[in-house]
Amino acid sequence: MLLNITNNKKQTMITGENHIGNQRSAMGDKTYTTFNPKLNIENNQRFTEATSEEINQAVDLASEAFKTFNKKSGQEKATFLRAIADEILAMGDELIALYQSETGLPEGRAKGERGRTMGQLTSFATMLEEGSWVEATIDTADLDRKPIPKQDIRKMMVPLGPVVVFGASNFPFAYSTAGGDTASALAAGCPVICKSHPMHAGTGEMVSEAIIRAAKKTNMPNGVFSNLNSSGIEVGIELVTHPGVQAVGFTGSIQGGRALYDIAGQRDEPIPVFAEMGSINPVVLLPEATQNRGEDIAKTYAGSITLGTGQFCTNPGLILGIKSESLTNFINTLSTEIVKLEPSCMLHPNIIGNYERNKQKVLEQDGLTVKADYQEDVAVNHARQTIVTVEGTTFLNNTTLHQEVFGPFSMVVQCNDASELEEVINHLEGQLTGTVLGELNELQKFNTVVDALQNRVGRIIFNGVPTGVEVCPAMLHGGPYPSSTDSRFTAVGVHSVKRWVRPFSFQSWPNELLPNELKNENPMGITRFINGQNTKDKI
Amino acid sequence: MLLNITNNKKQTMITGENHIGNQRSAMGDKTYTTFNPKLNIENNQRFTEATSEEINQAVDLASEAFKTFNKKSGQEKATFLRAIADEILAMGDELIALYQSETGLPEGRAKGERGRTMGQLTSFATMLEEGSWVEATIDTADLDRKPIPKQDIRKMMVPLGPVVVFGASNFPFAYSTAGGDTASALAAGCPVICKSHPMHAGTGEMVSEAIIRAAKKTNMPNGVFSNLNSSGIEVGIELVTHPGVQAVGFTGSIQGGRALYDIAGQRDEPIPVFAEMGSINPVVLLPEATQNRGEDIAKTYAGSITLGTGQFCTNPGLILGIKSESLTNFINTLSTEIVKLEPSCMLHPNIIGNYERNKQKVLEQDGLTVKADYQEDVAVNHARQTIVTVEGTTFLNNTTLHQEVFGPFSMVVQCNDASELEEVINHLEGQLTGTVLGELNELQKFNTVVDALQNRVGRIIFNGVPTGVEVCPAMLHGGPYPSSTDSRFTAVGVHSVKRWVRPFSFQSWPNELLPNELKNENPMGITRFINGQNTKDKI
Repeated sequence: MLLNITNNKKQTMITGENHIGNQRSAMGDKTYTTFNPKLNIENNQRFTEATSEEINQAVDLASEAFKTFNKKSGQEKATFLRAIADEILAMGDELIALYQSETGLPEGRAKGERGRTMGQLTSFATMLEEGSWVEATIDTADLDRKPIPKQDIRKMMVPLGPVVVFGASNFPFAYSTAGGDTASALAAGCPVICKSHPMHAGTGEMVSEAIIRAAKKTNMPNGVFSNLNSSGIEVGIELVTHPGVQAVGFTGSIQGGRALYDIAGQRDEPIPVFAEMGSINPVVLLPEATQNRGEDIAKTYAGSITLGTGQFCTNPGLILGIKSESLTNFINTLSTEIVKLEPSCMLHPNIIGNYERNKQKVLEQDGLTVKADYQEDVAVNHARQTIVTVEGTTFLNNTTLHQEVFGPFSMVVQCNDASELEEVINHLEGQLTGTVLGELNELQKFNTVVDALQNRVGRIIFNGVPTGVEVCPAMLHGGPYPSSTDSRFTAVGVHSVKRWVRPFSFQSWPNELLPNELKNENPMGITRFINGQNTKDKI
Repeated sequence: MLLNITNNKKQTMITGENHIGNQRSAMGDKTYTTFNPKLNIENNQRFTEATSEEINQAVDLASEAFKTFNKKSGQEKATFLRAIADEILAMGDELIALYQSETGLPEGRAKGERGRTMGQLTSFATMLEEGSWVEATIDTADLDRKPIPKQDIRKMMVPLGPVVVFGASNFPFAYSTAGGDTASALAAGCPVICKSHPMHAGTGEMVSEAIIRAAKKTNMPNGVFSNLNSSGIEVGIELVTHPGVQAVGFTGSIQGGRALYDIAGQRDEPIPVFAEMGSINPVVLLPEATQNRGEDIAKTYAGSITLGTGQFCTNPGLILGIKSESLTNFINTLSTEIVKLEPSCMLHPNIIGNYERNKQKVLEQDGLTVKADYQEDVAVNHARQTIVTVEGTTFLNNTTLHQEVFGPFSMVVQCNDASELEEVINHLEGQLTGTVLGELNELQKFNTVVDALQNRVGRIIFNGVPTGVEVCPAMLHGGPYPSSTDSRFTAVGVHSVKRWVRPFSFQSWPNELLPNELKNENPMGITRFINGQNTKDKI
């Protein structure tokens, strides 16, 4: 029923064309479709892959748009971002139905993710309206200083230039077309060229239309946003190597992110790539908590591991404990509970194919015990949740076991003692999150374990689950490689804007020609760092 | 006389050994000397190149030291940095004489640079004592929130890990052993392994000794600092590829910086390299200013071009004007004035060799006119200052003319009109600085020229000279590639600490176990961003 509605409306709304700034364009002859994993059929609409000419047009338009967009005030950019949120909402149920038809995800998730996406856009708008995010820093002159006069120097963040954003398979709204990367780049003052994710090209096109409508309504320059269809890797590579592109945002696999990082680093003029990639999100289960609350924790984690069919980058794929009867009980409860849950649909046959393949690769390793493996019949493209367990030494000696299995899968590592547990942590690759499940006194008792975990992750959680990434300024979503390509930035929260800006200094510049953020009068009333002090004062 | 004093004292002070943490070590059999360019002789002391074993020892010690150094309070790190400054000063005239014997630079410069270096160290100490630099960001919990409770999340900057700092040839104090990169990395909480610059290995060893003394006096862990001798590229490459190294700071040539950047990017776990590299620092001479003040500007720039024998990264190597009688007069005055100045000594025969070679390469290009070329006899290793001029179209069509000639050399490009001037700017590579010499009304009249310049540089100056980089928070020393490898960071000023830190989030962490910066009580009284507001309040 939903699908019929969608398909009917598609004829008026979805064309399969690229957005090259305010124009639609479909010059190429390579087309592709999206896929409905629940119905296990291709959707009707064909999308036309962007050509090299269209890529060049989009980048050239973005470069031209940058000249005026980088001068827009915070208020003007905020109005633009709020308008995008409004236009997305105005797409109504048609957009939600299309999202569902391209992902197999339930309506609640679609609406929740839409809300998150709108919330991200408005959080950047609020940041822009307040204005202090530019980190205005002023050192006033002292022309009488000996032996050398001190000049007036004023610094603030300015945008880098056109940014390429790669849509993510697992967040068609929140980390794709108008998602966190796009919202933060536009907030920074950078035009965005989105490489649409092929699995939800229709959703991408509709959201792009919302962005373009918002751009027109708020008088943003043509080229401030483009959306390019692409089913393979060529369009992405052409974009990342294009001299007009100044930065790249990516959410996806380690293989994909690293390839883009390498390509960008090999340019004549290298550019930054912020890629948020794989993570198995280790969870450390300390002994007392295991004894006191092992069953409750097991039930909670059965839910966290299967949430969204395990298709979250913060999915807890690795649970580390110290051998004990309580740990055995925890493993048994987790295994019993997780198979009680109804398997759910993955995003695409490719995704579930990878899940089964990667899981199989792990299951073939020596020393592994399968504790839970959903055995009932499941609907097409639905994933069977799986829990395995392994000894600490086996894990340490086999890095295949350290690889992410994207889906509802988790491995419990049973260590002999705290020292082996610490060694396991020290041998992990960089992770988005680390979680400690323990009693308060255990945090101190196992302080070297906790220190080791902190050193490998971007966010550490006490007695919670890693899934559910709050959108707030204090959130760090990123971490040591390979969870991200640069641990110095976050992909979530308003501080993610820092990926797309550079500090810029004006020396002895006339006050009336300075940006408002740096003028003596502080017309925006922002917090500034003046002569070593944070203040909202005028000069 | 000075040299004798130096050589006598060397016997007690300088050993030619590496500092591996608190131990001296000279396991290798490859040795080299530094060179006195004024006397044109090798200095006596032989320095022993670090071996692979010593490199591994230094990195392992640094990794071990990191575990405790990253927990030192801001106050403790500040005490350490201030102690380094004190120990450097305590080295007295012996250090100054040694510096001079290895660089040919005058005493005033040596003492001035020592003061700058001490000032940098104490500016980071002040930053640490105040404490707000960690960008503490707190979002408090709302456990009643529907549909999902909001967890308490708190974020602050934490150090990356061991940092390798490459000594710079042109700043033996301020951008080498205890220079800006080291000071900022130690302030961040990162142990430093310095790859000593071979041209001033003795100065490097003495300053290292000062750092080690300070580290011992202030109870810093063994391995918080090491200094490795190296005359070639091998030690640097081994350091940058070592898995224990987490970031790299470099000041030097584009060729060297890019090589390190590429090596670091190709690691299994890529690490950030901040390299501050070449720049020709374009100066735009607008017509009215040329007419009104051309002669004065010419005299000022004769001084700026030859300052420190042109061995500053902000040396104005390119002057862009629009053809006019005034511009001709400016060129003539600049040429007349610059040859009146006494040539001075370059740092090393290799440096003057490169200067002569690079200058010759430019002089061989078609369409170039030599306007000034110091013709008198000069002392050994002293550089002849040179001014050349070229047409805008010639410059546009020959990128050889865009390359840096490190030394007292500058090229005046005579453009036909403002449009050609803008085109020239748009074709420049990224630069540390850009300068506009103009009357106030000309900034508006030539706004597209100014916009173009802003887009290519890290710092823009109105009616001044680019040489003289003030050490202050508002300074941006860096810029678009290739002036630096990452325009999002500065190499000068306290904000340079941001290169060596990453944000880290604690979720639902017990208050008493949080770092002081994030505790409810705000015991350090720092400014924090709490629930979207900057405040020094407790929670």
